[in-house]
Amino acid sequence: MTLPNRQSLAPNAENAITILTERAKECDAQDSLASLISEFSLPKDCIYLDGNSLGPLPIRAKQRAKEVVEQQWGEDLITSWNKHKWIDLPYKVGSKIAPLLRCESSQVIACDSISVNLTKVLCAALSMQQRTSPQRNLVISQRDNFPTDLYMVQGLGELLGAARCELLSVEQDAIYEVIETHGQQTAVLMLTHVNFRSGLVHDMRAITKAAHSKGILVVWDLAHSAGTLELALDECEVDFAVGCTYKYLNGGPGAPAFVYAAKRHWPHIQQPLSGWMGHKRPFDFCHDYQAGEGMASFLVGTPPVVSMSVLDAALDVFDGISSAKLRAKAQSLTQFFYEAFCALMPNTEFLMVSPQDASIRGSQLALAHPEAYAICQALIANNVIADFRAPNILRLGFSPLFLSHQDLLHAALRLKEIMDKKSYMDKVFQTKQAVT
Amino acid sequence: MTLPNRQSLAPNAENAITILTERAKECDAQDSLASLISEFSLPKDCIYLDGNSLGPLPIRAKQRAKEVVEQQWGEDLITSWNKHKWIDLPYKVGSKIAPLLRCESSQVIACDSISVNLTKVLCAALSMQQRTSPQRNLVISQRDNFPTDLYMVQGLGELLGAARCELLSVEQDAIYEVIETHGQQTAVLMLTHVNFRSGLVHDMRAITKAAHSKGILVVWDLAHSAGTLELALDECEVDFAVGCTYKYLNGGPGAPAFVYAAKRHWPHIQQPLSGWMGHKRPFDFCHDYQAGEGMASFLVGTPPVVSMSVLDAALDVFDGISSAKLRAKAQSLTQFFYEAFCALMPNTEFLMVSPQDASIRGSQLALAHPEAYAICQALIANNVIADFRAPNILRLGFSPLFLSHQDLLHAALRLKEIMDKKSYMDKVFQTKQAVT
Repeated sequence: MTLPNRQSLAPNAENAITILTERAKECDAQDSLASLISEFSLPKDCIYLDGNSLGPLPIRAKQRAKEVVEQQWGEDLITSWNKHKWIDLPYKVGSKIAPLLRCESSQVIACDSISVNLTKVLCAALSMQQRTSPQRNLVISQRDNFPTDLYMVQGLGELLGAARCELLSVEQDAIYEVIETHGQQTAVLMLTHVNFRSGLVHDMRAITKAAHSKGILVVWDLAHSAGTLELALDECEVDFAVGCTYKYLNGGPGAPAFVYAAKRHWPHIQQPLSGWMGHKRPFDFCHDYQAGEGMASFLVGTPPVVSMSVLDAALDVFDGISSAKLRAKAQSLTQFFYEAFCALMPNTEFLMVSPQDASIRGSQLALAHPEAYAICQALIANNVIADFRAPNILRLGFSPLFLSHQDLLHAALRLKEIMDKKSYMDKVFQTKQAVT
Repeated sequence: MTLPNRQSLAPNAENAITILTERAKECDAQDSLASLISEFSLPKDCIYLDGNSLGPLPIRAKQRAKEVVEQQWGEDLITSWNKHKWIDLPYKVGSKIAPLLRCESSQVIACDSISVNLTKVLCAALSMQQRTSPQRNLVISQRDNFPTDLYMVQGLGELLGAARCELLSVEQDAIYEVIETHGQQTAVLMLTHVNFRSGLVHDMRAITKAAHSKGILVVWDLAHSAGTLELALDECEVDFAVGCTYKYLNGGPGAPAFVYAAKRHWPHIQQPLSGWMGHKRPFDFCHDYQAGEGMASFLVGTPPVVSMSVLDAALDVFDGISSAKLRAKAQSLTQFFYEAFCALMPNTEFLMVSPQDASIRGSQLALAHPEAYAICQALIANNVIADFRAPNILRLGFSPLFLSHQDLLHAALRLKEIMDKKSYMDKVFQTKQAVT
């Protein structure tokens, strides 16, 4: 990785680069997670700012993929369900995720996708509420929540009727107010902890408390939190949570999701996706469903063992690392890029969509620009892998495990060069051609 | 693989072996699918009679696993969604399964598990019915259907109430009768084409027709059919079907399942698991769910790409092979083992649970014996991998792709030896010890 030719930079920018380079080196020297980059198989010279969309390949996961396919499936065949404990994977994976959520480990299980898991926890929460308070039909959420969360509520609303399930989606700044005004009719508050576009972080503790004060159960979607934010599900008295493992947890494309359900709710949980793997005694093959104990009742069908095994190995990278430490590193990376961006591109046309306050910002920055798609493509062509989110967002993710501050300075410089030279313009042309 | 010492066999058995050996050789010589064994990576000297539980590893799948993990995920990272068309996998896999079901290929899509897919099609069928005939609340099924099928109806019944969904499970021989007597109240008939225990095959055409004559929609579970039975979903005018890919389709442990929905129903389908992947324009991230066209609306969350890719490669083994040919080979194998079993063990204590009539028997034999578990373990110790199904069934599966008639003779001889010498008795002791 080389810096762009300094002659192309204005004198004050040159000054900024010198200062930023020093700071990046200092930060990296103090980074206790720096050695973790050796855990990953990353393409050469690539600065990967899309770990919040698909985490890169952990070397352990690569080895496990080979082992589970060639040895376990290929050689040991059906006996692997016991011999290699495939049957325990959902629990084992759950117990590895639990420390990152700071919760007692039996409360987490890996299975299905976030969307499917949302249906399970929404149904469980709705039925818990309606047994005692049949008037509670509302599911409050945020208008710009990740769409699948809203869609799953809409789907349930169609199935159950508005009298049992109705989505009320409000702007982010109206959440406390709607808890206050609609508390008595509300069954569930469902929010994504870190907004997928802006990166804004909700105050999980305060919102959960406010909802509980009105008798509302709370479901948190941790897709952009697990593995990069400091979490404390048990302390915050969260009721249910779901999350994804292919972003900051590096579990591989479409790796199984997870579910958290607070132990205090276990005796009351009933969810309709009552598949055989969730049965109390699945291999008795009996006629009537009897839910397994605890988190077992969230299992449905046979899990995708290859994907689940790869995820299991990927999680070992986190062994012994607290979510506080992950958050500190990710916050430092994000803040450093933010400052580098401001210093290097003071007259930028980008609009910063993410919060300026680092304490309420996840591990990402969202930069709005009319040509965000073309700029994203130009960055990728320059080996900085970023993401585009419709309609106009360049989204940059800062995973704490494999990035250094110096990487981010290089990325910021490449972005500056693309913007200064308008070298994304050919991508604009390509895009327009592709559309027509 | 060597035959047992002939001195241990009675003279008439020796005669039988000679005849069976000749027949096995003849059948194998005429087997046009014989060369397909080279497509599989099987452990040495193992006779694998459990392809109906977990199909063995196709060599193409092994190669693809390496490619999807190391190259696509490891090197191309997020760009693989487009570059390697991960986004198209559910459709691509579906279109490879379709010829084995003999149906127009756009009607099949791969996603989630059988259990989750059953909820989707059951909800779709129930809501189609109840729009015009609200009195249709029954879902008829068979008492000894695979339990997850029954459990999913029970789960929906709990959620929706008996007035909208109630399971009526009847004995296998009462199906036509209950269609007749309960036709007007019934929304859905849900059956597994091949019974997981006995291997009995339902007459898909006749039952579907009988159900339709009463206005009932039919859901077939093809878990033990796809890849080994002759199917003709379109001709039989099936409404919905689900199926599994890790048995006869060799897609790998817990590989994604599939859904079939007849095109004529597409405009009327509504199912509650409305995840973002099933949206008309998933990457617009808009607030309201709009179902994608056709089978797209059955997609929910992000699919497990590693497992799905492995499955995609595994299916190429079937390229150009008709389900009629697969059925003929599997039937020949099953019948051959059956005859060998009868000839070699005329005074057997086993009870044959599977139909004697090959035309209504799937690619498996179920042999009941009080010590079935121990016998199964003794077979495995002798490199014949079979399966046990509670309470007392030794289940032998005869996949058409990688077994020869000579393999089956060896398997039958090993079973005979185990039974003659009662060499399973030490396994009985082990089992009992393990239980106490």
